[in-house]
Amino acid sequence: MFEKALALLEEKKFGQLRLYLQDMNPADIALFMEEIPEESIALVFRILSKDIAAETFTFMESDLQEHLIHSFSDSELKAVIDELFLDDAVDIVEEMPANVVKRILRSADPDKRKMINEILKYPEDSAGSIMTIEFVSLRKRMTVKEALRRIRRTGLDKETIYTCYVTNEQNRLCGIVSAKTLLLADENDIIGDIMEQNPIYVTTLEDKEIVAHTLHKYNFLALPVVDEELRLVGIVTVDDAMDVLQEEATEDIEKMAAILPSERPYLKTGIFDIFRQRIPWLLALMISATFTGKIITHFEDALGKFVVLTTFIPMLMDTGGNSGSQASVTIIRGLSLEEIEFGDIFRIIWKEIRVALICGMVLACANFLKLILIDHVSMTIALVVCSTLVGTVFFAKLAGCSLPLVAKKAGFDPVVMASPLITTIVDALSLIIYFNIARVILGF
Amino acid sequence: MFEKALALLEEKKFGQLRLYLQDMNPADIALFMEEIPEESIALVFRILSKDIAAETFTFMESDLQEHLIHSFSDSELKAVIDELFLDDAVDIVEEMPANVVKRILRSADPDKRKMINEILKYPEDSAGSIMTIEFVSLRKRMTVKEALRRIRRTGLDKETIYTCYVTNEQNRLCGIVSAKTLLLADENDIIGDIMEQNPIYVTTLEDKEIVAHTLHKYNFLALPVVDEELRLVGIVTVDDAMDVLQEEATEDIEKMAAILPSERPYLKTGIFDIFRQRIPWLLALMISATFTGKIITHFEDALGKFVVLTTFIPMLMDTGGNSGSQASVTIIRGLSLEEIEFGDIFRIIWKEIRVALICGMVLACANFLKLILIDHVSMTIALVVCSTLVGTVFFAKLAGCSLPLVAKKAGFDPVVMASPLITTIVDALSLIIYFNIARVILGF
Repeated sequence: MFEKALALLEEKKFGQLRLYLQDMNPADIALFMEEIPEESIALVFRILSKDIAAETFTFMESDLQEHLIHSFSDSELKAVIDELFLDDAVDIVEEMPANVVKRILRSADPDKRKMINEILKYPEDSAGSIMTIEFVSLRKRMTVKEALRRIRRTGLDKETIYTCYVTNEQNRLCGIVSAKTLLLADENDIIGDIMEQNPIYVTTLEDKEIVAHTLHKYNFLALPVVDEELRLVGIVTVDDAMDVLQEEATEDIEKMAAILPSERPYLKTGIFDIFRQRIPWLLALMISATFTGKIITHFEDALGKFVVLTTFIPMLMDTGGNSGSQASVTIIRGLSLEEIEFGDIFRIIWKEIRVALICGMVLACANFLKLILIDHVSMTIALVVCSTLVGTVFFAKLAGCSLPLVAKKAGFDPVVMASPLITTIVDALSLIIYFNIARVILGF
Repeated sequence: MFEKALALLEEKKFGQLRLYLQDMNPADIALFMEEIPEESIALVFRILSKDIAAETFTFMESDLQEHLIHSFSDSELKAVIDELFLDDAVDIVEEMPANVVKRILRSADPDKRKMINEILKYPEDSAGSIMTIEFVSLRKRMTVKEALRRIRRTGLDKETIYTCYVTNEQNRLCGIVSAKTLLLADENDIIGDIMEQNPIYVTTLEDKEIVAHTLHKYNFLALPVVDEELRLVGIVTVDDAMDVLQEEATEDIEKMAAILPSERPYLKTGIFDIFRQRIPWLLALMISATFTGKIITHFEDALGKFVVLTTFIPMLMDTGGNSGSQASVTIIRGLSLEEIEFGDIFRIIWKEIRVALICGMVLACANFLKLILIDHVSMTIALVVCSTLVGTVFFAKLAGCSLPLVAKKAGFDPVVMASPLITTIVDALSLIIYFNIARVILGF
């Protein structure tokens, strides 16, 4: 999609390139920056107009941002930082190494520096750390006309003007009023009369995922953030909430695949970082899987006599693992969407028991037919394998649905109970069931 | 959180209950509706004021909506439908059984009925099916003052007034202007001069996930939808885009756990529906796992001689499966976040080869020490197991990273290549590697 722009850059037609880029969305200009040679990035950035350059900067990946900051003069850096919304500036600062942070803070004007430092103090992943303090605040006694005038005067630097916050003298939040309400109201209406009372808010220390879910639940464009004394200190906007929800989903997916979550896109992550994300669970699960091996060792003699039993170990382990992870992943996702809570545990177990029995029976019947008609296995062996299937699916679903709930109740992240750990647990379970059923039926 | 309201309902203090509920957010009133006895739902709904009742209705689960519609008189139904935004009405209609749909359409006024029917015609999961046609359109030659007057006159029924769309006589989209720009502009400015040209848009048939990603990428509050002749027909708002992104993540997570995706929350899904979501992959994977069994059968004689080899089968299979799914899940998520495309395949393979070698070596060393020092296994067996580990991790990561890309290129959903299928493929791979290495080293 960038052929034209790349050609203009190649031919050094900077005037035309400037005009061409001005018509593009800053998110796309940022993508274009990823495509061009590193030595041209600063050059292209400099031909953009100031406001577009600053917006483009917020859309860029942090490695390119860092590269650009290094090539900026102090006054250039100051110009960019001054144009940024506060929450974007904080996002950038959080990604940069210490020496770059120092330079950024030195370049920001004193007010902005103070605000950035304020927000940096909030714990990582808290509402405070993702909020912006650039919002429109109004007073109850204002008329709509005064409110609109205030928005016109101060709105340019605000991240959103579409939700305005009504505060009292102690700066406590007492209501919200949308720009839509203001525009549709009579200009002599009083804010206190048309505002929505009892606004929904979160506190600065609230977890950012809860903040994002709250905003999503109510379909808000922004959510107010208050301190312990209920004073309004900032707002979280819908675009940041969307980022949080997407990151949360990615994190959950990574954890479900036994990967420690990372913040960087895959293609930008070095192989040692990828290694560090993956090796801990691989090691832990490898060690736990050796216990499964011990169970086999325990029944070594029987396996020596009935070698055919070994044939079915992979199928039983896989089916058990899949059944268990179906249940655990369903429950984990339900927990993170807040559709399920610990109190539902008995309903869930009862549901899974019935699903497990139906699934187990169907799988056992299908397998029985296959064993007898296609594999020509003896009836006794078929019986052992199929009873094990029913038992394995039963216990796999039981463990799969209950362990995430128990983990959550115990204060752990339920995602640790996703596929890999459940699989390892269920592997051991299925072998114990298998050999015990075999012992009873085959009598060894 | 609903103790007070439940108590008021219990004591039949409807006046107080009404006042109490009026102060709550409609999203919370909808949750409250889930908590009360079914026979009280219609009653509580009727004490709400008309606009709050309609908004509450949109937040309710579809089974409760259906229950309410059944208890409505025709005029009550008409009142609720008239209050709904078009896209909410369409969402509700899409969830209802045919007889309820007929009643809703009969109750809607002719204009609304026509619009609902229009949108119902768009294919499921298309931009058209999730858009609303209630947006503010402006003309280039209008002044800001005229535009604001138009918003005041028509804005009440619009889903959003914060992005206005500038169209020409043929109704083609020629620009967008935000309410912020309008409010901050001089009232005599001409829309054509202050609007943003070259707006980003999607077509009615575009996949809704791409629509949501586009809106998210540009941090928009709404995204315009045009038909084949580039005429503006609707907009998709950020709240609907967030829903789509969340549903997409849930769907991916379910598919990664070998579950057919469902649209209903777990606790509301019957056991036969859950069974139907889960059994197809369980059956398919069970059948494929029997091929792994065949490999074991093939080496039955050798296993009879070296029974100790059987002990390590679960550990090797699990480690292979986990390594493979780490790679595949990373790639699948990267593809759905559009961070990765097929063209990156060689970079990805080269990256995974290096990660695989490091992971494999570390796992093999750890395991070697354990085998020799703790399990007191013979050096030859330890050598067989540890070489297999390196080989298995290598091929697992290779298959894990490349198969999702190949699936995507071939037009399939890359998610089918997630953990369960990769695990089954890798199981077979690891056994083949294991027995062949064993044959060479142990010489059977």
